[in-house]
Amino acid sequence: MRNTPKEWTLIDKIRHRVQRPNEHTVVPLGDDAFVFKNFPGYSVICQDMMVENVHFRLDYCSAEDLGYKALAVNLSDVSAMGARPHFVQVSLALPKKLTESWLDDFYKSMAQLADNTQCEIVGGDLTFSEDKLIIDVSVHGSCEKPLTRKGACVGDLLLSSGPLGLSYIGLLALQKNQPGFLAAKMKHRRPTPRLDLVPDLLERRFEVHAMMDCSDGLINDGLRMLPADAGLVLFKENLPLHADTLEWARLHHQDATDFVLWGGEDYELLIAISPDLYGHFSKWHLVGQFTEEKGVFLSDKHSKKEISEFKGWKHF
Amino acid sequence: MRNTPKEWTLIDKIRHRVQRPNEHTVVPLGDDAFVFKNFPGYSVICQDMMVENVHFRLDYCSAEDLGYKALAVNLSDVSAMGARPHFVQVSLALPKKLTESWLDDFYKSMAQLADNTQCEIVGGDLTFSEDKLIIDVSVHGSCEKPLTRKGACVGDLLLSSGPLGLSYIGLLALQKNQPGFLAAKMKHRRPTPRLDLVPDLLERRFEVHAMMDCSDGLINDGLRMLPADAGLVLFKENLPLHADTLEWARLHHQDATDFVLWGGEDYELLIAISPDLYGHFSKWHLVGQFTEEKGVFLSDKHSKKEISEFKGWKHF
Repeated sequence: MRNTPKEWTLIDKIRHRVQRPNEHTVVPLGDDAFVFKNFPGYSVICQDMMVENVHFRLDYCSAEDLGYKALAVNLSDVSAMGARPHFVQVSLALPKKLTESWLDDFYKSMAQLADNTQCEIVGGDLTFSEDKLIIDVSVHGSCEKPLTRKGACVGDLLLSSGPLGLSYIGLLALQKNQPGFLAAKMKHRRPTPRLDLVPDLLERRFEVHAMMDCSDGLINDGLRMLPADAGLVLFKENLPLHADTLEWARLHHQDATDFVLWGGEDYELLIAISPDLYGHFSKWHLVGQFTEEKGVFLSDKHSKKEISEFKGWKHF
Repeated sequence: MRNTPKEWTLIDKIRHRVQRPNEHTVVPLGDDAFVFKNFPGYSVICQDMMVENVHFRLDYCSAEDLGYKALAVNLSDVSAMGARPHFVQVSLALPKKLTESWLDDFYKSMAQLADNTQCEIVGGDLTFSEDKLIIDVSVHGSCEKPLTRKGACVGDLLLSSGPLGLSYIGLLALQKNQPGFLAAKMKHRRPTPRLDLVPDLLERRFEVHAMMDCSDGLINDGLRMLPADAGLVLFKENLPLHADTLEWARLHHQDATDFVLWGGEDYELLIAISPDLYGHFSKWHLVGQFTEEKGVFLSDKHSKKEISEFKGWKHF
């Protein structure tokens, strides 16, 4: 779309902030489109949008947080395919309340994460909005063999790469302006995309039957990996609970398990593997198992309870 | 970002509406990311955002118009590199005032344009917004040899593939709810990306020194193609004026030339070629020439006037 002269000036400044030399670049940022030499293997693309007052509020998310997170959630999708990110496009609808220095902090933070993950911001759009900030990021990556959500078998174990439910505790603490809960707040504002796990997962790619990133809570995402005509048992005593989650649950007389089951935005990876290979994944957290019996169950050593009511974002 | 259960249901419906079989697809829509086999040549990516009440209003743009246009403006960027589009990602922040049937019309229209231009909608995001509609589209294409904005020489002619200023007349007629001006309104709501010209331009790729699409008016975009230390003369009597533009200028006692110079969103292609090859481009409109004399001039057979005040979007 047409840009205003003020947008042009800002775009020029941003270009200098983000542009990096790259041997794959054929036509750099600043033309009608960005052109690059393909990477070996397949191309991987994803795109994820964040809307003010829907996904975040500006009172508890800084420019740096948002620049980081808008890219991180896409990098998480790239990691969840067993892929590597290369190029990033960012579209911003910028309300007048945000200053040029806010914008500079936003791009500085995003460019830093891009640098740290060996990718580059190469395009996108900058426009004004009447009142709300909207951020939409797309990432182009590549992979040799995609690891998909489909492929889990009955009997497979479900593993998580890290604590679940923690980001939701961070969100609550931020929204209620509650002191402490620093790890939870960090998890919510600056989730780490698990690109660090990709090299090892690719070496074990014939052992990983299915993979995805966990952004909608363990139950909602676990169900997306369910084999046909199968069920899922979650191991209550094994669920990866962070100390902040336990502390929050204790203070508010809530069940910490609920946060793991229904809380979202942890951006940890979930994988399904054959039980006899569990020894190869000892750093992962065993959270469940796919079963012949249909339904979703929460089990501990005393009982197995069916979960029949499915909840989403609005649960808490 | 995390989606709500209502968003999941809508996403499933959209998936059925847009998904097409494709021999390049490795992992289809519905996983963490879309994975595809690369096309020969280089990859081309672009991304363009449209914001309600900044780029369009819902009282004069239907769901079908917006589904069409949000893709068309990106396809225009792809065509401006001499490239072909393959895959489309669409992010929508959808206000509650818009119905599911609105959304269905939006995707139906976008999918139709995608079908007509041999590309496929393969991903993106759907989220809610408090009040305004935001649309952000990215396109992945490929090309053998990119045709860039840079490369024009002093002496080169500047040509346009079609009428300029017409879209802006359409915008004014729509905003003022003025009857008639159907071609102008169509140009504004449903601009044709000039992918039709790409095959011929690729055959003549060694004759085309520079190319871009005209979205910010002839002067602003002509300046982007300017060789170093050069100027631009625009030929007033030659400017491609549509009958609707002439009629609007007559009715409102305005200079039709101004609309060509400063009006945007025509999405015609501009190319720079050597004057001795003009015969090869007889279907194009000759609009100007790059000169040794610096500055931007408007000339006719009687005079040559320097344009010293530069205007953008807010000109009219």
